Amino acid sequence: MKKILISHPISPKRLEELSSDFQVDCIQSIKTKYDEVLDRVQDYDAIHCIGLKADQRIMDKGHHLQIISNYGVGYDNIDVYYAKSKGIAVANTPISTSRATAEYTLGLILSLLRKITINDRQIRQGLLNDWSLSGQSGNSLSGKTLGIFGMGRIGKEVAHMAKVFGMKVIYYSRTQLDATADQLYGARYVSFDQLMSESDIVSIHAPMTAETYNIIDEQKLKLMKPTSWLINTARGGLVDHNALIQVLQEAKIKGAALDVFPDEPLVPEALLSMDQVILSPHNGTGTKEDRAAMFEESFGNIIAFFEGREMSGRVC
Amino acid sequence: MKKILISHPISPKRLEELSSDFQVDCIQSIKTKYDEVLDRVQDYDAIHCIGLKADQRIMDKGHHLQIISNYGVGYDNIDVYYAKSKGIAVANTPISTSRATAEYTLGLILSLLRKITINDRQIRQGLLNDWSLSGQSGNSLSGKTLGIFGMGRIGKEVAHMAKVFGMKVIYYSRTQLDATADQLYGARYVSFDQLMSESDIVSIHAPMTAETYNIIDEQKLKLMKPTSWLINTARGGLVDHNALIQVLQEAKIKGAALDVFPDEPLVPEALLSMDQVILSPHNGTGTKEDRAAMFEESFGNIIAFFEGREMSGRVC
Repeated sequence: MKKILISHPISPKRLEELSSDFQVDCIQSIKTKYDEVLDRVQDYDAIHCIGLKADQRIMDKGHHLQIISNYGVGYDNIDVYYAKSKGIAVANTPISTSRATAEYTLGLILSLLRKITINDRQIRQGLLNDWSLSGQSGNSLSGKTLGIFGMGRIGKEVAHMAKVFGMKVIYYSRTQLDATADQLYGARYVSFDQLMSESDIVSIHAPMTAETYNIIDEQKLKLMKPTSWLINTARGGLVDHNALIQVLQEAKIKGAALDVFPDEPLVPEALLSMDQVILSPHNGTGTKEDRAAMFEESFGNIIAFFEGREMSGRVC
Repeated sequence: MKKILISHPISPKRLEELSSDFQVDCIQSIKTKYDEVLDRVQDYDAIHCIGLKADQRIMDKGHHLQIISNYGVGYDNIDVYYAKSKGIAVANTPISTSRATAEYTLGLILSLLRKITINDRQIRQGLLNDWSLSGQSGNSLSGKTLGIFGMGRIGKEVAHMAKVFGMKVIYYSRTQLDATADQLYGARYVSFDQLMSESDIVSIHAPMTAETYNIIDEQKLKLMKPTSWLINTARGGLVDHNALIQVLQEAKIKGAALDVFPDEPLVPEALLSMDQVILSPHNGTGTKEDRAAMFEESFGNIIAFFEGREMSGRVC
């Protein structure tokens, strides 16, 4: 019987539900997650990986390890190259995470442009007593150009949702979609530099890899219009945050909505007092419904793997 | 030459642009708006009405008054019955306000369900240091039932936008749309009580009239599910706010996003500390782009009236 270790505490009842054809165990404490997995991994065939740094040490100790299944679409917590070299499969959850993240992206765009977050804060603080016609007013989405960086599953979903608000969509991605897809999503392929300079809103939907680390750097940020906004629901590491703070301080861009940061849960101090910024706790897939779906998908990938069926997202 | 009085200060340059075929004047100060209009109205054929209470006194003094054109779709600031009795036309701006308000409604729904507003506030206050998996998580729009109260132009636009997020739409309105429209907007007609009891989100899009004053009262609010939310971008007077505060305090509903209040800019004290609520300063049409479009539409209605053309929105 195959043995699966879940890198997160789970209720005994839920564990029993999951343990029909497999032996399923979980760790006891989130705080000692890494050490506990390292200590126990040698007995397991699979790790169900919830926010666990799955590195070489864990893979070296996991002599029987055949698969690491990630709860989440971004898998920069897993040393994929090393896994590949050891013949360990890595899976992720592209299906359950896409709609949730796209939905959240639109939520951030609307909150930022329409000033929902800051107005709510200022009303509570007693700072907004004059509801005159322009003081608290924002900008419409309609007619704005949304630039999507990374046109994968999430980017496409964002494009689809943005159209209903009357936005024009341009995108840059490693590979251009075929003409049918461009038409389907009403999106126009542009160069990286064009994306930065033509967009009213730049939204990041690329995975973090060695190639994309700090790819939105000072030079790219300075291509953006002073009337433009940056949205990041992907990974903090894709954006040079020192450069971002500088362009925000110098009003070289109009604002940003940031769901991710380079060193979470730390939020760079300078951002905490910026009214033109929305700060969010890595919540792109943060709904009860989507997290349940992500669990089903990621756990289901382990079962599919052992039963020889195709997984929803195979990284390697 | 027809004379138009704008009930809001306008720059001399803008006034001159508007004054090609008409004499166009404006008041000097927002603070003394009502008194100034009352003082001067006898000389004018039209009032361009920006947040002005156009009551019997003003109409009685306006001997030449032929039209009051409202900047905004809601016209409860104008005594329409009295205007009608005096043969004064009243116009509003249904076109420019619909998309903006619908867009804002979706923004409020997303901010509320996905906890964007409260998470931003708590991060800034240093209250959100544990980005664990469930603490700050919200709910998905996908699969939820949106109940629209008032299926006019704005309600239809909201229905259209909600579909892209995978929501089911039901509605209650004075009159049921014909079958084609139901199909077009993917919306199902239900009774008022059903709307309150079946919806996950109730969103109000009806005008305030004598009939709709406090129409969402204690009895209707108590029909709502404990897992449901209320959105109001219409008028504060449509909702009995004492009853609303009570159901919120007793967790009989899950939360609310309120863009309008009975006595603006006053926000009822009890709401200011509620984390399950979003407070917004009557900002449904609050964007630079939409307010410019509203000005064009409402001023254009006066010109259309004098030139014998159809106005975009004729109230009476």
